[in-house]
Amino acid sequence: MQRVRVSDGQIFAFTPDLRPTASVHPGDTFEVECQDSCGGQIRSEADLLSKIDLDHVNGATGPIEVSGAQPGDVLRVSILSLKVGKVGYVGIEPKLGVLGDRVSLGKTRILPVRNGVARFSEEIRLPIQPHIGTIGVATARESLSTFYPGDHGGNLDTREIRAGHAVYLPVFQPGAMLALGDVHALMADGEVCVTGIEIDGVARLRVDVLKGLDLHRPVVETREAWCALASAPDLDEAARLVTSDAVDLLARGRGMEWEDAYMLASLVCDLRISQDVDPHRTCKMVLPKRYLPRLPGMPQPARARTATRKRKRTTRR
Amino acid sequence: MQRVRVSDGQIFAFTPDLRPTASVHPGDTFEVECQDSCGGQIRSEADLLSKIDLDHVNGATGPIEVSGAQPGDVLRVSILSLKVGKVGYVGIEPKLGVLGDRVSLGKTRILPVRNGVARFSEEIRLPIQPHIGTIGVATARESLSTFYPGDHGGNLDTREIRAGHAVYLPVFQPGAMLALGDVHALMADGEVCVTGIEIDGVARLRVDVLKGLDLHRPVVETREAWCALASAPDLDEAARLVTSDAVDLLARGRGMEWEDAYMLASLVCDLRISQDVDPHRTCKMVLPKRYLPRLPGMPQPARARTATRKRKRTTRR
Repeated sequence: MQRVRVSDGQIFAFTPDLRPTASVHPGDTFEVECQDSCGGQIRSEADLLSKIDLDHVNGATGPIEVSGAQPGDVLRVSILSLKVGKVGYVGIEPKLGVLGDRVSLGKTRILPVRNGVARFSEEIRLPIQPHIGTIGVATARESLSTFYPGDHGGNLDTREIRAGHAVYLPVFQPGAMLALGDVHALMADGEVCVTGIEIDGVARLRVDVLKGLDLHRPVVETREAWCALASAPDLDEAARLVTSDAVDLLARGRGMEWEDAYMLASLVCDLRISQDVDPHRTCKMVLPKRYLPRLPGMPQPARARTATRKRKRTTRR
Repeated sequence: MQRVRVSDGQIFAFTPDLRPTASVHPGDTFEVECQDSCGGQIRSEADLLSKIDLDHVNGATGPIEVSGAQPGDVLRVSILSLKVGKVGYVGIEPKLGVLGDRVSLGKTRILPVRNGVARFSEEIRLPIQPHIGTIGVATARESLSTFYPGDHGGNLDTREIRAGHAVYLPVFQPGAMLALGDVHALMADGEVCVTGIEIDGVARLRVDVLKGLDLHRPVVETREAWCALASAPDLDEAARLVTSDAVDLLARGRGMEWEDAYMLASLVCDLRISQDVDPHRTCKMVLPKRYLPRLPGMPQPARARTATRKRKRTTRR
């Protein structure tokens, strides 16, 4: 299996003109090595977030060209597995995070990870649930450092981007130019202190190129739901954007009036926070598959089509 | 069992000087009748939110005096059951809700509720999960209409305030002066369109007065977690407030350094949105009981104390 290594290339900004360091075909399965978000600069509790070289922070491995992907398509990245390293860290720093104004001194904690459990302290053991913090494609026009989340993906810090789930990213440039990094062994919604358990990892991915989906921003597919994502300078604007997107998806996907979709969303679609600490904030809206089996434009799966035909035939008799 | 009826009294503002219409003792179980949030004014799909008398909206049944409750105490309201009526409604209106700027005409849908399921349309049936939208006590100083959420509770629109859970409210005035209403048969986080399924209901409650808890804002207890709540003019400020409160609760409750509690919260405490549509917004932070078994100041339960003694005795031998 192809393995894209950190040494093959890393980016620190998503731009329109990314040049690939690796190439894959739709349907391919491959592995991507990711450094931790600080690129290995934090090795002990004496290493503080304030003392590292910011030019080497939040590197994303890639870009990986997906052959045949064209602007207007959607790249589906299925996360088949996500293995993390043996040691992670969590850090705080004055002025960073939701309560940055209450932090007077930086602090780093090193967390050994073993058998799926991170040791925060002698008493506190945390079952891990690794996810990919930064994943994105070449942008339409702007250049955005990998600190930023946006319509292209980027620093989404959304804990649903984990093994067993898939990320749908709009394609803005030929070849898509996928890049990812910033793995977390664990993080809660909000990522309030500005880090999760930052750690290195290896993701096994499969990519597919989908036509006719008309997505403008990232969507994550979990077993039970679609999570629409949107990022903006503050939570209020991110919440408004993602609600607007999600109601449109529900209306188009179900073929129902927009007004009815808006009311239904208020009853069954949770508006939530992915992260409240990056330069732009990310909100998510959870659309249960019970009410939206497929995104608009997505073909009905073969098995469901057969079932429908059978049902129709039965009805006719 | 005592039953407090809407006809006994309703308030439309939480103020410092509420006069009781009913009285209960700590430990008492009693029932409270609640009108739907529009006070029965919406009876058909021709009745729009814009056409009702706003002076009769969001009434809260009460106030109910809890004997012995003093400023500085905490009122624990355990929701033993919450039965809802047979018909609810959901409505939208230009300028209201997260997407009020995209609504051109008001619309109301009437939803019959039967056997725990609300009928949104022929195809869409919604299993209900009723909760109390507005619940609060007399305020410390300000007068706030029942449209507002705040430190006293009020229009919290938090779907965890449901049967089997408990709300902890700081007491600001002698007798606490509990009042509640605005029942929803169902609502998602955010309440994005400005209503849930608005419906009348009857809550069976038990109240207790707790000393030494030092809470400044409402907290909801679920089976697995404590949800700290905070409200502010926008989501960003509500998120900051609730994160600050929750990290303090975690630090004090576990006896750990504030910096460590801040980091731990980033890993295991979800920052979420209760509602994004009321005059002030409400955020919640979910503190799993696994990491915070009791709120600070809360005595260890008798059974746990015995277990600890037994363990100590065993260790000594």
